Amino acid sequence: MRTAFYISDGTAITSEVFGHALLSLFPVEFNHITIPFVETETQAQKVLDQISESFQDTGERPLVFYTIVNVDIRKIVAKSVGINYNFLDQFVAPLEKVLGIPSKPEKHRTHSIHETTYDIRIEAVNYALANDDGSNLKDYEEADIILVGVSRSGKTPTSLYLALQYGIKAANYPFTEEDMGDMLKLPPILRRFKNKLFGLTIQADRLHQIRSERRANSRYASIQQCRMELREVENLYRKEKIPFLNSTKYSIEEISAKILAETGLKRRKY
Amino acid sequence: MRTAFYISDGTAITSEVFGHALLSLFPVEFNHITIPFVETETQAQKVLDQISESFQDTGERPLVFYTIVNVDIRKIVAKSVGINYNFLDQFVAPLEKVLGIPSKPEKHRTHSIHETTYDIRIEAVNYALANDDGSNLKDYEEADIILVGVSRSGKTPTSLYLALQYGIKAANYPFTEEDMGDMLKLPPILRRFKNKLFGLTIQADRLHQIRSERRANSRYASIQQCRMELREVENLYRKEKIPFLNSTKYSIEEISAKILAETGLKRRKY
Repeated sequence: MRTAFYISDGTAITSEVFGHALLSLFPVEFNHITIPFVETETQAQKVLDQISESFQDTGERPLVFYTIVNVDIRKIVAKSVGINYNFLDQFVAPLEKVLGIPSKPEKHRTHSIHETTYDIRIEAVNYALANDDGSNLKDYEEADIILVGVSRSGKTPTSLYLALQYGIKAANYPFTEEDMGDMLKLPPILRRFKNKLFGLTIQADRLHQIRSERRANSRYASIQQCRMELREVENLYRKEKIPFLNSTKYSIEEISAKILAETGLKRRKY
Repeated sequence: MRTAFYISDGTAITSEVFGHALLSLFPVEFNHITIPFVETETQAQKVLDQISESFQDTGERPLVFYTIVNVDIRKIVAKSVGINYNFLDQFVAPLEKVLGIPSKPEKHRTHSIHETTYDIRIEAVNYALANDDGSNLKDYEEADIILVGVSRSGKTPTSLYLALQYGIKAANYPFTEEDMGDMLKLPPILRRFKNKLFGLTIQADRLHQIRSERRANSRYASIQQCRMELREVENLYRKEKIPFLNSTKYSIEEISAKILAETGLKRRKY
């Protein structure tokens, strides 16, 4: 199996995202190796050795995706026996021309604590945790969005993703059977913040499957119960004109991107 | 201010990461606009209009970063009046030559629920939440790593990031004053899983600042208390040879990447 290396003097996240997106276009498996924080010439030499070894072991030239700010380090890595993709650099000169200014590379500008929105993101993560699963109803004033839905419809991971990636303060509130009674009504606390609500729903058989993994053969997991709860929440979304999304076929990345696109919610981090 | 557009028939996360990395090399501000899930020709036409409007409003040609699998949609977006960066495509043909096989683009291969490790990541997020802040000591057998440290040293957001991004099951356990007594000793439950422990520490003044935002003027937040707790945990890490990291100057992305590099922990998602 051919090896794909991701090398950087930072986290290597940018190299990884780019390399993965490119390699995902090919129906082949790769052995992925990430080497972040290559900050000295000695470390860079070791990286070269590792790339050479992989070539010898596999008989296939490794692919090497890298973004390296330090020029000396970059020059060393560029000598690797692999097929080198210094994919950012070739865009820099043309962009300098377009913008009419020289680039000013600084180490660790992306994905670092020096990013201006870093503290906002961490605060949003703390907010999401403190306001997970209806555990706190006092701080909805502060919420950018309040996700609602039945248990296990994807609210918690989506809240966390919105916080971590975008710095959005997302609370979430679960509709439980107790809320339902004869018919699900919007609890007063949610009605006060109705413009912040966003509903999630999910296919009944998928919900049944997810809940069964948690509590097999329970009433909670039964297909009847799942169907009933979902019918109630979907009726509520329609009646109250709460925007909603069926999460069944989407990842949390996709759900989050769709929520942002649909609500026009401004992210705090770009 | 010049506008940077990020366009995709998927989440547009790849375009964003690439575009942000490139633009971060320039000391200029941009107005960022992401338009994900452009899946019909009508939507693509609307995108063209939006790009034209931005050009008219600002007098500067927008930058347009895009990855679009659907050929018809891609051809439309390629006609925009902006400066277009279809940055993946130009690497595809050379890579086809290297690999000796044609590319096989499929929609939503990255960042989608069809990704093979998607369920693993969600399970890891649920694990991190259930094992946050020492709230559960029964499931450490299952942990890939157990982060330890004083309150507010970065354990929780790091655990969540390891789970969301890498599918790693990270528990975390806070050392509190009660654990310390005369001298901090490793609690028996942690000693059983000593090979899974990874310590975080932080500078006392930074910890003082973070805790003061939560509980101003408390003993918990006082610089003396912060110093005492940090001295105790650092002594413990050294005595017990627990690998550790000072998180003061690092983002959670950097802390996570450093933990992976240092421990050799295998991620479940690449």
